[in-house]
Amino acid sequence: MSKNQKFTLVKRPVGMPDDTHLKLEESDIPAVGDGQVLLLTRYLSLDPYMRGRMNDGASYASPVGLGEVMTGEAVSEVLESRHPDLSPGDMVVGRTGWQTHSVVHADELFRIDPELAPPSAWLGVMGMTGFTAYVGLLEFGKPKAGETVVVSAASGAVGQIVGQIAKMEGCRVVGVAGADDKCQHVVEHYGFDACVNYKDDDFKAQLAKACPDGIDVYFENVGGKVFEAVMKLVNTFARIPVCGRIAHYNQTELPEGPDRMIPFMGQILVKRLMFRGFIQSDHNELLPQFRRDMSQWLKEGKVRYQEDVVEGFENTATAFQGLLQGRNRGKLVIKVS
Amino acid sequence: MSKNQKFTLVKRPVGMPDDTHLKLEESDIPAVGDGQVLLLTRYLSLDPYMRGRMNDGASYASPVGLGEVMTGEAVSEVLESRHPDLSPGDMVVGRTGWQTHSVVHADELFRIDPELAPPSAWLGVMGMTGFTAYVGLLEFGKPKAGETVVVSAASGAVGQIVGQIAKMEGCRVVGVAGADDKCQHVVEHYGFDACVNYKDDDFKAQLAKACPDGIDVYFENVGGKVFEAVMKLVNTFARIPVCGRIAHYNQTELPEGPDRMIPFMGQILVKRLMFRGFIQSDHNELLPQFRRDMSQWLKEGKVRYQEDVVEGFENTATAFQGLLQGRNRGKLVIKVS
Repeated sequence: MSKNQKFTLVKRPVGMPDDTHLKLEESDIPAVGDGQVLLLTRYLSLDPYMRGRMNDGASYASPVGLGEVMTGEAVSEVLESRHPDLSPGDMVVGRTGWQTHSVVHADELFRIDPELAPPSAWLGVMGMTGFTAYVGLLEFGKPKAGETVVVSAASGAVGQIVGQIAKMEGCRVVGVAGADDKCQHVVEHYGFDACVNYKDDDFKAQLAKACPDGIDVYFENVGGKVFEAVMKLVNTFARIPVCGRIAHYNQTELPEGPDRMIPFMGQILVKRLMFRGFIQSDHNELLPQFRRDMSQWLKEGKVRYQEDVVEGFENTATAFQGLLQGRNRGKLVIKVS
Repeated sequence: MSKNQKFTLVKRPVGMPDDTHLKLEESDIPAVGDGQVLLLTRYLSLDPYMRGRMNDGASYASPVGLGEVMTGEAVSEVLESRHPDLSPGDMVVGRTGWQTHSVVHADELFRIDPELAPPSAWLGVMGMTGFTAYVGLLEFGKPKAGETVVVSAASGAVGQIVGQIAKMEGCRVVGVAGADDKCQHVVEHYGFDACVNYKDDDFKAQLAKACPDGIDVYFENVGGKVFEAVMKLVNTFARIPVCGRIAHYNQTELPEGPDRMIPFMGQILVKRLMFRGFIQSDHNELLPQFRRDMSQWLKEGKVRYQEDVVEGFENTATAFQGLLQGRNRGKLVIKVS
């Protein structure tokens, strides 16, 4: 019988993770118990939030333990089933981690419908990142026609979908990304009204020019200097769904002062701003509605998406480092087998 | 004919205002135009937000101009009317400023119903501060039975009402105030479950002990060290309506670093916190419902309130300085005549 290949966390990174933190190992594949299935991973999702799971200490969920398989979602094929609802050949999505094989209970899996979208899309536009965009923008951003929506990490898996939904809502959509080709792509391919490269020297001036009526919704994915520039432009009653802060995930110490907390809270008060941190998994009651809407939008061509597919399970750790450095173009997935 | 007495802003304070910033002056009373009424001020409301209006630069509203009458709400008696809806002897509430007489259009006034509550109460529990408590707690705090609600400036005009509404909602209510007698009062008189003096050396430990299940709603009136201590105790999904930040109103420079913005935003994300700045006047559509609810609660004895009545218009500026230093007990009003 073949062996399981897996990436385990062997050292907690301080700052950016490198090759010393994750180890590619082999292990035996466990026996399939009652109600369980044996899965072969087809596509593995890589997402910025995984960096947080490598730290010790509370985040949304418990950290990955040292020696444990890195956590993550994957689309897999059922090889063997001891549950009546699943059969060999079925394609499922589940939180099975960075490994080629897994044995899990069928209750922890969702069987995808390949008629609605291809398998890898269930990790992106039809899966966690698409749902993140949907929940964050519609539940917390609450964009109204004619308003200006700014999306950071605009070309990423979440940002590209946020912008397209906001366009359908009748908003002016301005992206922020870290490369000119990313900016060009979101304008030409996803219909953003404008996109600004935050690495440009005159980024603040460019952003102000792209938002002549100020900013009503800021979909926060990054933190850092983008957040600062946005805060100078927010309108009264702006909503800021806080989805991620990738600029800070590898930060090891606080910047020197002055402490900006006090003027920040003053701005919340005077401009009556709304900030809301969120994670899509708190809102699973909206999943059926999301899947219905998104599959319809895909069919009608109203939402497009881009995947950055890296072939070969052994490249997972390197691809993840690239993700944290902004090297991917669109939703990053590993094509495992 | 008698003269109008008024306090005008003659110098913008940097830090705490003193006697050099406001001047008591006399002026003629203007003629009453068509649709206007002449008012005699009976009670003048003093509120912390007025400090912000003394600064140059945008806040909720334009600042008070140099040489202009200080802004503020008052309950007044109609002396003369050139509008069919108001007659001499009617009692009205309006934004007529720190003066003994005013001539305004009847459309800018609300005729109070003295059957529902005594005149001065229309500046407090039945007026702006009661409505602030109602809107902030119910619309943005959204307390659920069994949750813990913390209220800063607990004995103040807003805080005392927030706590009593939260008790009616079935919450554990913990106040924070700056004097032992204030703390004792909110527990004994308003039914708070506990109240902690933020000036105590072991304030943080006392607050933690008073909130054994963490904090679900924090009604923010003060900022500063109270805010910091609360942030250590907030639960996942906590809601923080931001109503005021009195600890900072007289601050003239930012504290030294480190810059706490980054961990703060991280906490918003990981704990899925909701922050919302608000001002009651954005929600005037709720005023009829508020007046109905509050007058009923007063009648049934479910809400009690305390006023700190200072006699004599000439004491207005001094009483306002005391308010910013926390010297008042309950809603501060000037009894003018």
